[in-house]
Amino acid sequence: MVLLSGGLDSATCLAIAVEQGFQPYALTVRYGQRHEAEIAAATYLAKVGRAHGRSVGHDIIDIDLAQFGGSALTGDADVPKGRSDVDIQTGIPVTYVPARNTIFLSLALARAETLEARDIFIGVNAMDYSGYPDCRPEFIEAFGRLANLATKVGVEAPERGEAGITIHAPLIGMTKSAIVERGHQLDVDFARTVSCYDPVSGAGGKDVLHCGRCDACSLRKKGFKEAELPDPTPYSK
Amino acid sequence: MVLLSGGLDSATCLAIAVEQGFQPYALTVRYGQRHEAEIAAATYLAKVGRAHGRSVGHDIIDIDLAQFGGSALTGDADVPKGRSDVDIQTGIPVTYVPARNTIFLSLALARAETLEARDIFIGVNAMDYSGYPDCRPEFIEAFGRLANLATKVGVEAPERGEAGITIHAPLIGMTKSAIVERGHQLDVDFARTVSCYDPVSGAGGKDVLHCGRCDACSLRKKGFKEAELPDPTPYSK
Repeated sequence: MVLLSGGLDSATCLAIAVEQGFQPYALTVRYGQRHEAEIAAATYLAKVGRAHGRSVGHDIIDIDLAQFGGSALTGDADVPKGRSDVDIQTGIPVTYVPARNTIFLSLALARAETLEARDIFIGVNAMDYSGYPDCRPEFIEAFGRLANLATKVGVEAPERGEAGITIHAPLIGMTKSAIVERGHQLDVDFARTVSCYDPVSGAGGKDVLHCGRCDACSLRKKGFKEAELPDPTPYSK
Repeated sequence: MVLLSGGLDSATCLAIAVEQGFQPYALTVRYGQRHEAEIAAATYLAKVGRAHGRSVGHDIIDIDLAQFGGSALTGDADVPKGRSDVDIQTGIPVTYVPARNTIFLSLALARAETLEARDIFIGVNAMDYSGYPDCRPEFIEAFGRLANLATKVGVEAPERGEAGITIHAPLIGMTKSAIVERGHQLDVDFARTVSCYDPVSGAGGKDVLHCGRCDACSLRKKGFKEAELPDPTPYSK
């Protein structure tokens, strides 16, 4: 079970799951984010995976977290632009969505249980996004512990001497440039991934332009630059 | 923040939160359960609370867990009827909804954070429903730990020397009859709560008949009987 947002990180995370020998099943959450571009990207990435016989399925589930408010990503504040690396690394940004990864992992856990999957992949990263509490290793570890207390499989598997649920966060200790290098090795179609917090979409959400100035774009640009790899991202600026 | 399903337990849990001096805010999740009767009950209970100056708000959030399947409560199997007390206490029943309480608590956590609330109440009970893994004290404890790692308030409050998020499960160690007694003392309008897994609704979801034979009805009946209190529940059988 791979949480697939349609961004560079989750696309690389999906490729890593495949490389590790898992048959992936992707879950995308339409949570009221400002734009549909990343949903379209996730759908494309899952479809490409299927064409290569990699992915067995892709679910999109809707939950309107914008109803709760509290984040720039769901329309409650402006997305900050042109911030310095230091600013990006400091504090919890307005793009933080309350309890988002807890909700996403809970949904992945539910879907994993109905599919009898026991491995959940999430492309969180603690290096560049140090401001998000729910991207830290201690959060992932606590969720893994919870998952095995919360579910039928978590309770019953150990009784049969089997492993319970494992939360995989293969990118958690990687820099953005290391993720770019890894994804490049694994043939991730970076041009079709969407990282931007405030993208501009063309017709049918297909030709997505990244704003180039939000925190996510800044980190993405820096990642390609430091990895010394060509950046195929279409930026508007 | 009180998770309010519209059942006898969550209604009593809400009354306990009020008695403890909290100003409650209710959250109901429409998750694809077979019937709307419990949503109507939750709405009524929140409205009654407001009339008494108790409740400041009530949100209903939609998430279609039926899409994932895997439970009799979302239509994937028949709701068992007429089971014995021993059968009810044994194993994990088909009415288990994968990761339901993890999802519910995650949503309550998100809403709590946007409201700057730090106390989350959930009416889970480990005595009668021993079969549900996500009703056990160890699950509640693990979620509390996760909540304080997952959120902005959980990270920042301790830095200011303040308490973080607390998950309250006041019913967890109570028998159904003890819950009935407690709710009775607190004037809970039991006649308008819906416990049944398979109820029959009248016009406008108003005159709900409990089936009287599912596990939830069996426990409810037994609770009133053992508490030696009149059972105001309208049963069809």
